[in-house]
Amino acid sequence: MGTCSADLAALLGPNATAIAAADYICNKFSDASFAVDNTYLLFSAYLNFFMQLGFAMLCAGSVRSKNAISVMLTNVLDAAIAGLFYYLFGFAFAFGSPSNGGFIGRHNFGLESIPSSSFDYSNFLYHWAFAVSAAGIASGSMAERTQFVAYLIYSSFLTGFVYPVVSHWFWATDGWATAFRVDNGFLFGSGVIDFAGSGVVHMVGGVAGFWGALIEGPRVGRFDSSGRSVALRDHNATLVVLGTFILWFGWYGFNPGSFNKISGFYTSGNHYGQWSAVGRTAVTTTLAGCTSALTTLFGKWILTSHWDVTDFCSGLLGGFAAITAGCSVVEPWAAIICGFVAALVLISCNKLAEKVKYDDPLGAAQLHGGCGAWGVIFTALFASEKYVREVYPSRPVRYGLFMGGGGRLLAAHIIQILVIVGWVSATMGTLFYFLHKFGHLRVSADDEMADMDLTRQGRLAYVDHDEDESQKQGFK
Amino acid sequence: MGTCSADLAALLGPNATAIAAADYICNKFSDASFAVDNTYLLFSAYLNFFMQLGFAMLCAGSVRSKNAISVMLTNVLDAAIAGLFYYLFGFAFAFGSPSNGGFIGRHNFGLESIPSSSFDYSNFLYHWAFAVSAAGIASGSMAERTQFVAYLIYSSFLTGFVYPVVSHWFWATDGWATAFRVDNGFLFGSGVIDFAGSGVVHMVGGVAGFWGALIEGPRVGRFDSSGRSVALRDHNATLVVLGTFILWFGWYGFNPGSFNKISGFYTSGNHYGQWSAVGRTAVTTTLAGCTSALTTLFGKWILTSHWDVTDFCSGLLGGFAAITAGCSVVEPWAAIICGFVAALVLISCNKLAEKVKYDDPLGAAQLHGGCGAWGVIFTALFASEKYVREVYPSRPVRYGLFMGGGGRLLAAHIIQILVIVGWVSATMGTLFYFLHKFGHLRVSADDEMADMDLTRQGRLAYVDHDEDESQKQGFK
Amino acid sequence: MGTCSADLAALLGPNATAIAAADYICNKFSDASFAVDNTYLLFSAYLNFFMQLGFAMLCAGSVRSKNAISVMLTNVLDAAIAGLFYYLFGFAFAFGSPSNGGFIGRHNFGLESIPSSSFDYSNFLYHWAFAVSAAGIASGSMAERTQFVAYLIYSSFLTGFVYPVVSHWFWATDGWATAFRVDNGFLFGSGVIDFAGSGVVHMVGGVAGFWGALIEGPRVGRFDSSGRSVALRDHNATLVVLGTFILWFGWYGFNPGSFNKISGFYTSGNHYGQWSAVGRTAVTTTLAGCTSALTTLFGKWILTSHWDVTDFCSGLLGGFAAITAGCSVVEPWAAIICGFVAALVLISCNKLAEKVKYDDPLGAAQLHGGCGAWGVIFTALFASEKYVREVYPSRPVRYGLFMGGGGRLLAAHIIQILVIVGWVSATMGTLFYFLHKFGHLRVSADDEMADMDLTRQGRLAYVDHDEDESQKQGFK
Repeated sequence: MGTCSADLAALLGPNATAIAAADYICNKFSDASFAVDNTYLLFSAYLNFFMQLGFAMLCAGSVRSKNAISVMLTNVLDAAIAGLFYYLFGFAFAFGSPSNGGFIGRHNFGLESIPSSSFDYSNFLYHWAFAVSAAGIASGSMAERTQFVAYLIYSSFLTGFVYPVVSHWFWATDGWATAFRVDNGFLFGSGVIDFAGSGVVHMVGGVAGFWGALIEGPRVGRFDSSGRSVALRDHNATLVVLGTFILWFGWYGFNPGSFNKISGFYTSGNHYGQWSAVGRTAVTTTLAGCTSALTTLFGKWILTSHWDVTDFCSGLLGGFAAITAGCSVVEPWAAIICGFVAALVLISCNKLAEKVKYDDPLGAAQLHGGCGAWGVIFTALFASEKYVREVYPSRPVRYGLFMGGGGRLLAAHIIQILVIVGWVSATMGTLFYFLHKFGHLRVSADDEMADMDLTRQGRLAYVDHDEDESQKQGFK
Repeated sequence: MGTCSADLAALLGPNATAIAAADYICNKFSDASFAVDNTYLLFSAYLNFFMQLGFAMLCAGSVRSKNAISVMLTNVLDAAIAGLFYYLFGFAFAFGSPSNGGFIGRHNFGLESIPSSSFDYSNFLYHWAFAVSAAGIASGSMAERTQFVAYLIYSSFLTGFVYPVVSHWFWATDGWATAFRVDNGFLFGSGVIDFAGSGVVHMVGGVAGFWGALIEGPRVGRFDSSGRSVALRDHNATLVVLGTFILWFGWYGFNPGSFNKISGFYTSGNHYGQWSAVGRTAVTTTLAGCTSALTTLFGKWILTSHWDVTDFCSGLLGGFAAITAGCSVVEPWAAIICGFVAALVLISCNKLAEKVKYDDPLGAAQLHGGCGAWGVIFTALFASEKYVREVYPSRPVRYGLFMGGGGRLLAAHIIQILVIVGWVSATMGTLFYFLHKFGHLRVSADDEMADMDLTRQGRLAYVDHDEDESQKQGFK
Repeated sequence: MGTCSADLAALLGPNATAIAAADYICNKFSDASFAVDNTYLLFSAYLNFFMQLGFAMLCAGSVRSKNAISVMLTNVLDAAIAGLFYYLFGFAFAFGSPSNGGFIGRHNFGLESIPSSSFDYSNFLYHWAFAVSAAGIASGSMAERTQFVAYLIYSSFLTGFVYPVVSHWFWATDGWATAFRVDNGFLFGSGVIDFAGSGVVHMVGGVAGFWGALIEGPRVGRFDSSGRSVALRDHNATLVVLGTFILWFGWYGFNPGSFNKISGFYTSGNHYGQWSAVGRTAVTTTLAGCTSALTTLFGKWILTSHWDVTDFCSGLLGGFAAITAGCSVVEPWAAIICGFVAALVLISCNKLAEKVKYDDPLGAAQLHGGCGAWGVIFTALFASEKYVREVYPSRPVRYGLFMGGGGRLLAAHIIQILVIVGWVSATMGTLFYFLHKFGHLRVSADDEMADMDLTRQGRLAYVDHDEDESQKQGFK
């Protein structure tokens, strides 16, 4: 007999039928909650998945047209490969409790014993979309020069193992670093608050992409013989805007959706409950993105005297990547600070990348890695006590340094950054190193200089001239 | 103790625990409603926001390719600027009750005291998307020849002040012209029924765009030296279709979403409730759009002997703009009439615009202003008594003239049109006049004749030829 | 007094007010369910409708650029024509119970008497989107060579009559072949389990398209004078990816949405209910698509030594078309088998089509017809007893042959295939035959060789050269 039944039975009277009546009523409330929460989570999962189209369009628009097909193929592949590998292994490694000492889950392979009282199919679908995102981020960094077989291998490894393990640590109820543990002896008595994954998803993708792009080196022609940076112009701003707005749309699945449930009152019968927190999360996400987009646009205008819509777009995404960790536990005004600093972080990382001759066609390592890391720090500075208590009710409350919560959360979050960088470097860095060593990472220089779409994929993305060209001369 | 509790307490018995039991049960019902309603409103808000991508793609596809980036930049900017200004001021001006005599709200700046019993974060997000739409409509009218700084100024002013004030009048519970007021002494004892904003959003955007486009004048080459109209061909029909269908998709957030809540029975325990009204609204929206699209397609075929997919698209959007005011209170068959007339209004407005040499690259003033005004009138003619009673339960019922409801609603709606035209002309018209006077509205003729994307934004939307062009000669 | 009220009244006590209390409480639960279920169904309908944009982009990207506008026009038209015809006739033919002997519905024309206890507006909207899909599939097969007037006629006929009748047979509670009938004397005591329409939607669209494409013959130049196949290259892979992912996104409305309701427990107060089945359906859909996409990609690589993103895309859609029939009643592992075989079916059908010189620009007959038919068979082999009992509670359970359920379901499903092929051939085949006979089906060879977009639609999809071309020579 749950709390609801016990409470209600006491009110209806002490006799047996009152208890049965209470059970009956409470079961129906429970059923209603499951229906609402699954509706909420499934549509959030759909939005979350839809982001992969955003990545595909963003990538296709950001590379030279000759590589548009290659890069899109990697994006669509990520979704399908993750579909199988996250089903077979990933979900089990991430959430298969009880886990091996908080390090890796070990149940629910191939969705065995799902649905359970903790997880339904909707949870799997939702987290599959996260795994796809992590892989999608990495493929941006390595666009325009990576062998197809390398994509197949690292995408499987990332979505089937590397990412699930990280998500277990920070998100599973028995992960060693989770904010849900009551008794977290590690991490200064604090857990890590990475609500929707500035660290767990964005930094993982960004750091993975960083190693891949670093090890295979810059694209041919990206830096001239004297080492100066040469812009390899992106070919289609419309696709960049299309991809960015689809990502914006999908981010409403990514961030507010991470509550998994929308029912749950904070004061029953009042208007205030989990649904308010969900709405607030959508608002902080929006404000951080908007602020970062405007800051980046104006910042780059100061630096270059040009208004560029792609600056707006990357600024927007940087703001989103940053707010993702703290979106549920900060005030809307703090989200504006988050976005403002994210823009500065993004611009600085891009400057730095150019200086050290690091070539990332999408700027994914800078955007997701850099702004993601800022988001992790930001959360430790601005998380509000009230919201942390509501969103993570079971834990000993640690909240933001600037909100009067002391430095323990910040210390824990710095550890998070180090651990993620270390783990992803050790796994993905090693993988890329050996792929490179055995000649499976980068395409040949000849292939790269030629039309990669033609040599690898056998066709061009755009066919401007139809076969019967000669017959329509008169019309053009 | 609410109605639900009182009713239930009477049934369970007169003793104290029965009252407590009733409270307990009713609180849980209340919680469930909040969860469902917020799920409904948040996803409607996401769809509503997604429309901005539709506007961006529609604009990018409708202008000459050299201006695609410029126009997309204004669309993305609208969303971000509105994000900040609607957060800081707009929402407070629109819904910060109690207001200054029904004219303008004065509370909740920066979302202070939100969530309250009236508004949650989801309401803010939903109405922010409306503000973005109003600005997005106006930027279409002024495409291809407006200075960037002018966009920044008018978009802030429109989303932060002009639009919120109008939405306060017609939508806030204490606005002077709202249909929710029981005691509306103004407007012939009737309030205005503008459910989702044919007037509040579409006419505001359309009239604002009209003044901008009129004051800065037609694009170079739009009318030849003898004054004849010269079609400046849009460059990408695929983007027009893409944008239009995204708008269609988003309109299901715009119109049915305007209920804000989906729970609420009309006869408890029966199948008939607010959810039916929401569904009916989606159906009237669909039917009006489809009818208008087909009518415009055939109408233009009669006029020009060509079948043109962009005629279909603008007809569709005109039908949607028209049904928006009355979508919740008319029968499906009436929606077909609405769409049919909307197509005629659209074709006529476009003819008229050409005659008076008014140049609006997207036809936005005609479509949103003209069809929006028709929608306001249409509602006053066809609103059904039954549906008005259900959707606006607290007001003295005034319904459609043709449905036997008399002329008071029509009179009120004519006032609405005059007031909106007056207010937007006085504010936005004045703004555009002064921007123009001080040389900040229109780009120089040289810039306009050259590639505007190059001069203002420093790059072209499409780069057809890669840097290493010479090396792939053999492939093309 | 419903079951809920009776049960609860017995628990609360035998007196009259207890009965009233039980009624009161149960009515509120009923209201909550209607709110949740309509939220679920409406958003599923929006996603389902959004698929039409996917079809439009897929078609636009798959045809030669000169035909992009023509083919998009047919896709947008399908949605609008279906809007009117499905409203006037289609919904009544499909679900207007009681029907004429299980063959065709005969009530609810023009949505008369809607909402009822069985159907709300959301059901109409949801099924309208299905009708649009069926028409959208057929227009792919006939792209690039069909007269506009032929589209108008067959699209109206298909969405207003042919498709609704089929959906009545298999989906209406009194259709002659439905799995919902308790007393199904036909079909070996079994009903047909075609949950979301591998047969009802995909085969109907595929077979209709097949006859159209067959009767009008291959495009000019598709097979050379010696009969060898000549690839008419698709012009834009980015649009193909865009369209495919939008279809993927929309399929989450198509398949899981076909439950119509998400509330409904299997064990009350437990976590297990209809929401789990909905989630499982989303998972089986995802896994089948992913498996088929990867299999097709690798399969074509083995055959052609090229990795082609459009192979991935068509494989994905083939997997979706196949899983659609059984998505709700099979285990996730079975979905992987479904997808694997779907890829083989797709590749074989395409090979066969080429051999017999059947030209289908989108491969729609092969993909939707071929994989759809496989999906119907697959369901009869792999439907699990447990899930069939849950999803179709009222029927005598027949389940998959390989799951120990015997061969009756398979026999019934083979009948389904024959009946659909027969009905669609008799209606649509006859229509296309007469259209062809009277010269209204195919455009003239001259028109086809020339730019069809120019001759029929009067404009080109892409305008690469602006009017003031001469003035920007310096920039390109």
